[in-house]
Formats: sequence, C-alpha cells, structure tokens
Amino acid sequence: MFVLGIDPGLTRCGYGLVERHAAGRHRAVAAGVIRTDPDADLPVRLAELQAEVRSLLGEHRPEAVAIERVLFQVNARTAMQVGQSAGVVMAEAAASGCRVALYSPNEVKSAVAGWGGADKEQMEQMVRAQLGIDRPLRPVDAADAVAVALCHLATAPTALAAEAAR
Amino acid sequence: MFVLGIDPGLTRCGYGLVERHAAGRHRAVAAGVIRTDPDADLPVRLAELQAEVRSLLGEHRPEAVAIERVLFQVNARTAMQVGQSAGVVMAEAAASGCRVALYSPNEVKSAVAGWGGADKEQMEQMVRAQLGIDRPLRPVDAADAVAVALCHLATAPTALAAEAAR
Repeated sequence: MFVLGIDPGLTRCGYGLVERHAAGRHRAVAAGVIRTDPDADLPVRLAELQAEVRSLLGEHRPEAVAIERVLFQVNARTAMQVGQSAGVVMAEAAASGCRVALYSPNEVKSAVAGWGGADKEQMEQMVRAQLGIDRPLRPVDAADAVAVALCHLATAPTALAAEAAR
Repeated sequence: MFVLGIDPGLTRCGYGLVERHAAGRHRAVAAGVIRTDPDADLPVRLAELQAEVRSLLGEHRPEAVAIERVLFQVNARTAMQVGQSAGVVMAEAAASGCRVALYSPNEVKSAVAGWGGADKEQMEQMVRAQLGIDRPLRPVDAADAVAVALCHLATAPTALAAEAAR
C-alpha cells in the first residue's frame, strides 16, 4: 500500500510517498516539492499544481492521499492560498479514486512524534527513525509531507486491517 | 466572445454564461447552480465540482472565466470551503486555456449597479436590465454569477478591444 502525503502550498507544496510494510518499518519511495512560479497569476499557478499532482498520482497510483489540514494563520491571504492549493489536491486525489484523509498539524505531530508540541527538528528525527534514514531529509516541506503519510499509516488502522484481510 | 461567470461555493456554486454583443446588449446563454452532496466528504465534493466545471468549460468553451473573489467572512470554515471551491474552478479554467479574472464583490457591484453598496435586489434588477430579461433571475446564485460575467465584460476593455481589432 502506498500513501501519498501532501503538505499543501502554492509556492512550495511538499509531497512524500511512503510504502507500508507489515513489519512496521515503512519505506519512503519518493519525496520532493512542487513549486509554482511566484510571478505567474494565481489561476495559472493552481493549474500548474493540479497538473503536477495529477502526474504524481498517475505515476505512483497511491491507495490513499493524506493531506495536512489548513488552519487559519496570522496571514489570511497566505492561509487562503494554501487552502486553495489543498482544494486542488483534494479534488484531484478524489477524482483519481484515492481515499483522501485530512490531518491537522497537531494530529500529525502526535502520531509521528508522540506529542502535538514537537518542533520541526524533532519531527524530522522521528520521521527518519521510522523510515530508517540516516541522512537529513531535505527540503523540509518534503519531510513534512512524509510525516503526513506516516500519520495516515499510524491512524487509519481500520482501513489497513480491512486491506490486510483481503 | 463568451464569458463564464462563477460565484464559487461548495454547496451551491453559481454559474452564468454571457455572450458579448458589440452593440452592448449582452445575452445570457446559460445559468444555473452546481450543487454537491452536503453529506459527502469534502474531497469528493470538490471532485464533483471539478467534474461539473470541466463539463461546462468543455460544452461552452468560453474565452474567459470571471470568478468572484473570496473574502474572509465571519465564518472562517465557510470562507475556507468557498476558497477551496474557487481554487478548483481557477485551476480547471486556467488548465483549459481560458483567461481567468477575479473580481471582489464590490467590483462586481460597482461595475453592474454603479456603486459598491448595491443590495441583492438592485443587483438582480440591473442584471436583468442589462440582459433585457423581464422575469426574475433564479436561483439567486445564478444571478450573482451572471453579474460577475457582466463585470468582466464591463471592466476588461483592453482585452475586448484587442479581440475586436482581430
């Protein structure tokens, strides 16, 4: 089972594809950042993001897409852009037949690092530990996206059990 | 030239297709509301909206899509859902090769009714007057979307002049 984790954003949208292993040691298959041209108009950037996400879904055919939920931030304009990006990703993922799950930043931190107050460095260390990776995960948006995928694998036991029973 | 106006939303997304006439009397070609199932999950609803918008774009092949800009409202959750819907529409429209323009509610009111404080009833009357329609425009989301298209026709003179010179 492949899970595609997404840390949504317009300028930088992190993605991380994780393969589930029954023994619990999951494997990171691909991770990176989708960037769109900051000088382009918003609709063009959203269309770029849409095309990149569609390409990722077509290439890797994940069974589930886990997306970090957008919370309102101090900067309302940025929050709205991140929300619009998340909307585009959600629509593409659902249209491709994937299960789509949303997780708040706190849920991701709790699932991966054990508590909701974990900072970025602790999160990256926990992600590396869970995946058995001994070098730093960069860029950081990609590490965040991998964490969202791991959160899904940790917190969707019903779906996974059903899959295992097949 | 056809302009597709969109009043974005997840539960109700208004659309109005207006054909430009050189004499100034534009013509409403199609108007309606895209609804998605309120009981379905958010990603599924966004995918439904995406499919409907793609179908509209494919059927009518507008040259421009004019979308009402989402402003932050009292209800942040609703604003985010409307923003996500707008994001999906923007991505689809830009991907299909349309020009995409965003207008604030005040810009739409100013362009169509002559001042930014016009209420819904005044807006509907002005839309009907501009289109030569003698019966009420319903549902109201469709009338709003037609107003956004009329706003684009009124405020995109450069693009229209360039088109006319061809």
